[in-house]
Amino acid sequence: MTSTIEAAIQSALAAIGTRGKPNNMYFVACGGSFSQMHAAKYALERESKSIAADTYSSAEFIARNSPRLGKSSVVVLCSKSGDTPETVAAARFAKERGAYTIGLTAKGDSPLAQAVDTRLDYDATPDASSADIPSAIVLRVAFGVLAKFEANAKYDAVIAGLAKLPAILATAQAQHREATLAWAQERKRETVMYTMASGSNYGVAYLWACCILQEMQWIHSQAIHSGEYFHGPFEITDFDVPFVLLKGLGDCRNMDQRALDFAGKYSNKVLEIDANGFDFEGVDEGVREYLTPFVFLPLLRAYAVALSEARGHPLTVRRYMWKMEY
Amino acid sequence: MTSTIEAAIQSALAAIGTRGKPNNMYFVACGGSFSQMHAAKYALERESKSIAADTYSSAEFIARNSPRLGKSSVVVLCSKSGDTPETVAAARFAKERGAYTIGLTAKGDSPLAQAVDTRLDYDATPDASSADIPSAIVLRVAFGVLAKFEANAKYDAVIAGLAKLPAILATAQAQHREATLAWAQERKRETVMYTMASGSNYGVAYLWACCILQEMQWIHSQAIHSGEYFHGPFEITDFDVPFVLLKGLGDCRNMDQRALDFAGKYSNKVLEIDANGFDFEGVDEGVREYLTPFVFLPLLRAYAVALSEARGHPLTVRRYMWKMEY
Repeated sequence: MTSTIEAAIQSALAAIGTRGKPNNMYFVACGGSFSQMHAAKYALERESKSIAADTYSSAEFIARNSPRLGKSSVVVLCSKSGDTPETVAAARFAKERGAYTIGLTAKGDSPLAQAVDTRLDYDATPDASSADIPSAIVLRVAFGVLAKFEANAKYDAVIAGLAKLPAILATAQAQHREATLAWAQERKRETVMYTMASGSNYGVAYLWACCILQEMQWIHSQAIHSGEYFHGPFEITDFDVPFVLLKGLGDCRNMDQRALDFAGKYSNKVLEIDANGFDFEGVDEGVREYLTPFVFLPLLRAYAVALSEARGHPLTVRRYMWKMEY
Repeated sequence: MTSTIEAAIQSALAAIGTRGKPNNMYFVACGGSFSQMHAAKYALERESKSIAADTYSSAEFIARNSPRLGKSSVVVLCSKSGDTPETVAAARFAKERGAYTIGLTAKGDSPLAQAVDTRLDYDATPDASSADIPSAIVLRVAFGVLAKFEANAKYDAVIAGLAKLPAILATAQAQHREATLAWAQERKRETVMYTMASGSNYGVAYLWACCILQEMQWIHSQAIHSGEYFHGPFEITDFDVPFVLLKGLGDCRNMDQRALDFAGKYSNKVLEIDANGFDFEGVDEGVREYLTPFVFLPLLRAYAVALSEARGHPLTVRRYMWKMEY
């Protein structure tokens, strides 16, 4: 974890403190950055006694124009390039309404960085620690708020857990290396592939479906919520329909297990990745479920790379994005 | 609108009133019923000065176990059969935590009806008025709360608008009759079909994707949020990829229009249904956007029926649901 980010978070918390305890936190971004906001909403809802939390795609956040957005709000935004027009507009909109704005971006001199009260610069290169991916930084902001305003006792455990993440991830990647390559060969001809998760990991499934499979591989997909699976989507399950299922920790795990039991019975193409296999030894049990997305996300990146290589379709290829006005 | 439902809503509002203004409203259900909760969350977020609102799939609602759930909460649940296990469990869980619970069900002697403080019985037969579908009833509860606790002035306009709904729907259905049949013939061989919407209509797109296309037609699908489309999913757009796009009213309309402009340029298979074509004459302009889902939903039912007939795959066919333990 970089000390610059920690210092900036503490400075933001001090500034928010002068306004009193926030009533609500809005987590606002688009696409891959949006997907990285869900884990913080989940943690706040599990932990907070009084702060409402929600995630919005940036344009919808502005359009909803909630009267509850104001001086008692903290709005956390994220854009890797820092120039996603909807997210920059959302930052300006929130600031005009009096909210305290925090912006994550990999480009420090970008319009988003300039629009917000506190900017958090993150490293978007492949060398970045998994403890410094946007969703992990946003979780630190959430737990910082919980610690400062509600005396939530888990902050230190979260920080200690994040420090162990690179080692946890390295072990998981080594354990999955062979499976990654075998899976990519088996799935390289698929034209449809579903992902499933719940709780803290739903955002990872959303990213995998929308930004990896649809955007980078042109494979049809949907992130199905493990609990919702049984109330409609499970009817498309068949022996040849592929699923990637993320089995989390905590109280949502039962939902994932139930979805896995069913999908595994009727489809021959279910990839299960179980967070119980991650080496969380030494990490406080009460915060493990909050950290699983930061292992799943880089781990799934390895699956994406393997799939793209097996398909001869690099993850960098686009037909529309960045190539035209839209 | 049935007078029994109105009386029950007023009785619930009176009971909630004895507890003081609620801090938050939770809208909890599964699948098709879950999809019908989104419009009320949207309206509350657009209108309320202080009441937080959120939707949850029932099992996730219990697993999140939010400390904010308590005596200042109103929890609205829905299950057509009244015996969806997760939703019945969620009702009991919410009541144990002290929340005021309201349950919508088409079966008055069901476990859900027995578990909640106020039950709202709705007519699930095809003869039911579109003003009495679950999402419309839930919206009335939301505006009832807004009127009672925040003196929101739109309640009467919502009720007056709902009274005009059957006529608005009949006109829309007549206008779409030919298009419905032609579209069903053109799309009957599709194996993948996306839906798009935003704002008040996102729940309709979700229902269409998960409960009509996946569940009842075994067609692969995803409800793409119109604003999110450009941040990943739009890369799967191609000349032969079909979309159904719901163009709403209000501030979200621009997002839908932008998605339509793009999808219509690169796909030859875009069905646009524009709420601007609905005859809202005489309905207060400030509430029209809230009522569009109740026209879209039954209108899309006609598209679903036509598609199922063209494909020889009745909407009643299931391979798993209700046929086995899961």
